[in-house]
Amino acid sequence: MIEPRRITVELGFRSYPIVIGDGLLGGNFDLAEYVRGEDCLVVSNVTVAPLYLEKLRSNLGGKKVAALELPDGERFKTTDSLHQVLDQLAESGANRDTTVIALGGGVVGDIAGFAAASYMRGVGFIQVPTTLLAQVDSSVGGKTGINHAQGKNLIGAFYQPGIVLIDTDTLQTLPERELKAGLAEVIKHGAIADIDFFAWLEDNIEALLAGQPDALAHAIERSCEIKAEVVADDEREAGRRAILNFGHTFGHAIENSLGYGELLHGEAVAIGMVMAAELSDIEPASRERLRDLLRRAGLPVSPPAVGAQRMFDAMSMDKKVVQKQLRLVLLDRLGDACVTTDYDEGSLRRVLEAAE
Amino acid sequence: MIEPRRITVELGFRSYPIVIGDGLLGGNFDLAEYVRGEDCLVVSNVTVAPLYLEKLRSNLGGKKVAALELPDGERFKTTDSLHQVLDQLAESGANRDTTVIALGGGVVGDIAGFAAASYMRGVGFIQVPTTLLAQVDSSVGGKTGINHAQGKNLIGAFYQPGIVLIDTDTLQTLPERELKAGLAEVIKHGAIADIDFFAWLEDNIEALLAGQPDALAHAIERSCEIKAEVVADDEREAGRRAILNFGHTFGHAIENSLGYGELLHGEAVAIGMVMAAELSDIEPASRERLRDLLRRAGLPVSPPAVGAQRMFDAMSMDKKVVQKQLRLVLLDRLGDACVTTDYDEGSLRRVLEAAE
Repeated sequence: MIEPRRITVELGFRSYPIVIGDGLLGGNFDLAEYVRGEDCLVVSNVTVAPLYLEKLRSNLGGKKVAALELPDGERFKTTDSLHQVLDQLAESGANRDTTVIALGGGVVGDIAGFAAASYMRGVGFIQVPTTLLAQVDSSVGGKTGINHAQGKNLIGAFYQPGIVLIDTDTLQTLPERELKAGLAEVIKHGAIADIDFFAWLEDNIEALLAGQPDALAHAIERSCEIKAEVVADDEREAGRRAILNFGHTFGHAIENSLGYGELLHGEAVAIGMVMAAELSDIEPASRERLRDLLRRAGLPVSPPAVGAQRMFDAMSMDKKVVQKQLRLVLLDRLGDACVTTDYDEGSLRRVLEAAE
Repeated sequence: MIEPRRITVELGFRSYPIVIGDGLLGGNFDLAEYVRGEDCLVVSNVTVAPLYLEKLRSNLGGKKVAALELPDGERFKTTDSLHQVLDQLAESGANRDTTVIALGGGVVGDIAGFAAASYMRGVGFIQVPTTLLAQVDSSVGGKTGINHAQGKNLIGAFYQPGIVLIDTDTLQTLPERELKAGLAEVIKHGAIADIDFFAWLEDNIEALLAGQPDALAHAIERSCEIKAEVVADDEREAGRRAILNFGHTFGHAIENSLGYGELLHGEAVAIGMVMAAELSDIEPASRERLRDLLRRAGLPVSPPAVGAQRMFDAMSMDKKVVQKQLRLVLLDRLGDACVTTDYDEGSLRRVLEAAE
């Protein structure tokens, strides 16, 4: 076992810790002290629950633990799944002291978090992310929500957990494709905010792909630090927080045009980052470094042929459209992103032509 | 026209004004400056929209105004209605700059507010309450939500509007029974926080029932002031805010046991206040004053025969159950309420026997 690492997301009286280590599930970490009442509802899915639910129970000694298994997959991030959680809370007579614990990837975390935010206008909430994507991205920062036919994450809430518990051992059962998809967000954190971390990733990408625990723990820790710092500055994404969406406006448009489920979110983001770098006024060598690292991580770097106009239309639906102007996250240089409307629409259309 | 009165709900950078006056709808108040983008969606119902939607449009000069009419009534405060609003927002391509305007009573305000809170995790929101109940209670304080089969307001969010615009002229078209139901919450504000206001109500209850504009404006202003002050202290109801629920735990239990729609919310609260006063350690003369004023306001003061045990069970489902203990709002004296678990369960059961 490595020594657990601890990061604090600084949000005043709603500050909370992220604890990262191996072997934390199965009783090596007392999660019960973060449960405000006596009752928990663990929300998981049919894939993750058989692997980790019993282990998680032993971290919750003395609490009454109920569980709900949702179907597995992004296409179940729906109103129906949300209401399954809400109904179970209501029917079990849950009250404001009840704590909802998300055990799974981003889909489980987003649904469970939105349910926790909405049930009685807010009950206890804990994140136990079991995919790399959720560990480095979706479990940190308080964004929760569900999809709508018109767009991803269109309905939701900002709702912070009381703690995020990350056991890197869970990555041992993660399919390789999902590990790679998670690495896209790790690489993103280097690209937008820390050139030294980006260089570290260039040196350690094979160790990460091989599941080397120390390397994974460092990559997760540094990702969470970067994300936590950005979120603490701008919880509700009034400004700088949007840099975390580097690659996402293009990526969402790809997912939306292709139909959800074809590409993993991280894969779409990888392609989106390459497209955003194309549009950024940076050195060609920096674009090449980004593309190379993504390729070495086993990620796609070229858009599928969904059509440029279709992508353009999908991008216009983005939450980042303000005053009719699409704000994009671009790179000032590798390791430094900005949110801007200062780009040439002709250049944007040329970048989108890669999707023809 | 009387001079509009202006109250500020103090919530730091989310502070917002409540503007109260007659003749405000129809162009006499520039609401457009409170709309952050160009697009508004007015959410109203089939009863209120024909009366006030066109007037409201003339307060929104220069903005693009869409409208949605929900069916009228508490039984439509459902997931389905919520999704009607969300779907219309999504399908019209609304973005974070869009402003949702609630035009109607508490049901419309609660649904529209929860939709505004949830769409893209929060868009602009304005309250234009047209019932006395909404003007003195539900439009102020940021509680939004919908009902669930298991209980009222079980699903929702805390979400503050940018402004509350109260035109007392709208009360001229309000059915008398609803005006009386609104007076229950006005009387509540006196009973929990201001004995002088309570005495003023004793002197002016006939003027209020007659719809005298000056009296109504004062009653609304003082109610909003009391509510705003309590909410500013404790937005998320960690403590003192709960005094606003005086009569509500009993009242909700009556509504729940009887089936929603039999009694108006304010009528159930009137009965609930009498029951809570029964359980309070106060002078019998104070109980009598409260009961008298409610009776003079044309409100019921005795519970329907729903059964004591059934009411007890319904109360146990209340959001105010913390650590298995039902907290109740009781009076220390008339004009001063407290939240307490310090009451005798035998006495509670005796009070509930009035429902046999």
